[in-house]
Amino acid sequence: MEQKIRIGICGYGNLGKGVQKAICQNSDMELVAVFTRRDPTQISKQTSVKVLPITEVAQWMNQIDVMIMCGGSATDLPDQVPTFAKLFCTVDSFDTHAKIPQYLNAVDEEAKSGGNVSIISVGWDPGMFSNMRAYAEAILPFSHTYTFWGRGVSQGHSDAIRRIEGVKDARQYTIPVPKAMEMVRAGENPELSTREKHERECFVVAEDGADLSAIEKEIITMPNYFADYDTTVHFITQEELDKNHKGLPHGGSVISCGQTGEETKQVMEYSLTLDSNPEFTGAVLVAYARAAYRMKKEGITGAKTVLDVPPIMLNQNEREEVIKRLL
Amino acid sequence: MEQKIRIGICGYGNLGKGVQKAICQNSDMELVAVFTRRDPTQISKQTSVKVLPITEVAQWMNQIDVMIMCGGSATDLPDQVPTFAKLFCTVDSFDTHAKIPQYLNAVDEEAKSGGNVSIISVGWDPGMFSNMRAYAEAILPFSHTYTFWGRGVSQGHSDAIRRIEGVKDARQYTIPVPKAMEMVRAGENPELSTREKHERECFVVAEDGADLSAIEKEIITMPNYFADYDTTVHFITQEELDKNHKGLPHGGSVISCGQTGEETKQVMEYSLTLDSNPEFTGAVLVAYARAAYRMKKEGITGAKTVLDVPPIMLNQNEREEVIKRLL
Repeated sequence: MEQKIRIGICGYGNLGKGVQKAICQNSDMELVAVFTRRDPTQISKQTSVKVLPITEVAQWMNQIDVMIMCGGSATDLPDQVPTFAKLFCTVDSFDTHAKIPQYLNAVDEEAKSGGNVSIISVGWDPGMFSNMRAYAEAILPFSHTYTFWGRGVSQGHSDAIRRIEGVKDARQYTIPVPKAMEMVRAGENPELSTREKHERECFVVAEDGADLSAIEKEIITMPNYFADYDTTVHFITQEELDKNHKGLPHGGSVISCGQTGEETKQVMEYSLTLDSNPEFTGAVLVAYARAAYRMKKEGITGAKTVLDVPPIMLNQNEREEVIKRLL
Repeated sequence: MEQKIRIGICGYGNLGKGVQKAICQNSDMELVAVFTRRDPTQISKQTSVKVLPITEVAQWMNQIDVMIMCGGSATDLPDQVPTFAKLFCTVDSFDTHAKIPQYLNAVDEEAKSGGNVSIISVGWDPGMFSNMRAYAEAILPFSHTYTFWGRGVSQGHSDAIRRIEGVKDARQYTIPVPKAMEMVRAGENPELSTREKHERECFVVAEDGADLSAIEKEIITMPNYFADYDTTVHFITQEELDKNHKGLPHGGSVISCGQTGEETKQVMEYSLTLDSNPEFTGAVLVAYARAAYRMKKEGITGAKTVLDVPPIMLNQNEREEVIKRLL
């Protein structure tokens, strides 16, 4: 039997735990260790896997094939991934869109110098949704593609509400506007403002005696986060929040419509309905970790994206078998 | 400016015409000639493009980069593609599922001997739907994937009805059963019989004085084609058929549902709603023709499938630009 692909996880939050679950569903992989900036003994209580301080990572260069980077896009990944790319193949879910080209170049240089493959910005958006946008544009160059997100929990928006005075806890859902989706599917190629594409629904637990109308006003007028959207605020108890809004569901749709003739409209749609955003993102990261490992074996090096990876590279089964069964 | 990719079309039925329309939407390509087994002068009346007898194809070896093969899967493609693969890169829409592995091997040998790339079984199913099945299985190895076809015209079933005595013309629609799709989306992983997945609706023009109930009975009891399905037959006039059922719409959905945790269900769905099946298939063929051309330039040879092609290879724009805009 072939040796298993040896995986490391760097960062053990929701995403790292999602990656760990995904590895268990892939029999050609084994999780070697989790690396953390926190105190490893604290995390060891949560899991049976080996937990090590991130400072020891270089010692594992020859025992780990692919390191799955589960830190945040704001500061962790830009700092960690170029360094790690010298030591291991890496996969990450960097999603600061405007900085992707610059990040790709920084990682590319280090991955090449280490003889490794780093696949950046993996997940569902960027990730699978990027694949769908690329397929749609290639097949129908004059099509229009729209991306809708939700219904799903935005952690950034939930955090923004929690920072308001008098707010104890909060959960924010991003919701695509059904009418906008219908117009896109009908091939109307609408010009849609931010407000016309998505709306926001907030479930807020207020402190005892807090001024609810002041909180509501502060939410719906908050620049960047809420001011450009139709926003609904519901005040609920902590018990209700814990009972009904504990999960991290998300999803969305990439809808493309183009014409191939004067009267022939062609609509492509890819939709995800996810009960757990971090677990699905983790599953995508694990599939692309396999691709990174295989690409390196083929002599490829440098920073890649999902767009550079053939679907067959993601599947743990033999090419001939996959072609026979799935083509 | 870079030289355009020089395309040939072999076979000028609905699919060949769809390919021709698609080439017009891709500014990095030019259609050099159409090759036909029929009398070229007859086809020349329909189009301004150069039409040549298929027997002259070998003379065009150095003037055409990719030949898009638009014949049928039953006899044309297995006969033509291995021969053509020696002369040109080729793309085809071979869809006889059981024979794909054998066909792949036959084409692979000839493509390698000619130093060319042949991408087989391109279109939407096999084709884009295969990509979706492969992505789904790679991301969620324990998911269940279901493919539904329709609502759309099946030409094979329409032909089968037309062969019945007393039938002048007919059009058959394949329709997915909504309840089955709902069960799949709900993650129930149902065992679905043929009858439970699709139904068939037939619009039939009978000859004057034909026995309508005999025709209806012959349709709904026809083995393989209709006996295993719930089938509805409508008798209509030729005028109605020409007015309301002239097009070749089709489409379908690939729906996958899997779990990443005990209570976390993840649903992926890819759907196509196509006003013209041959024009969409033609558009997919053209995108993969570009990939065949580029793969050969990279030194790759042999028979490939859509699963072997990274999405970026299909797009006419520069990698950096596509990553910046679509990732």
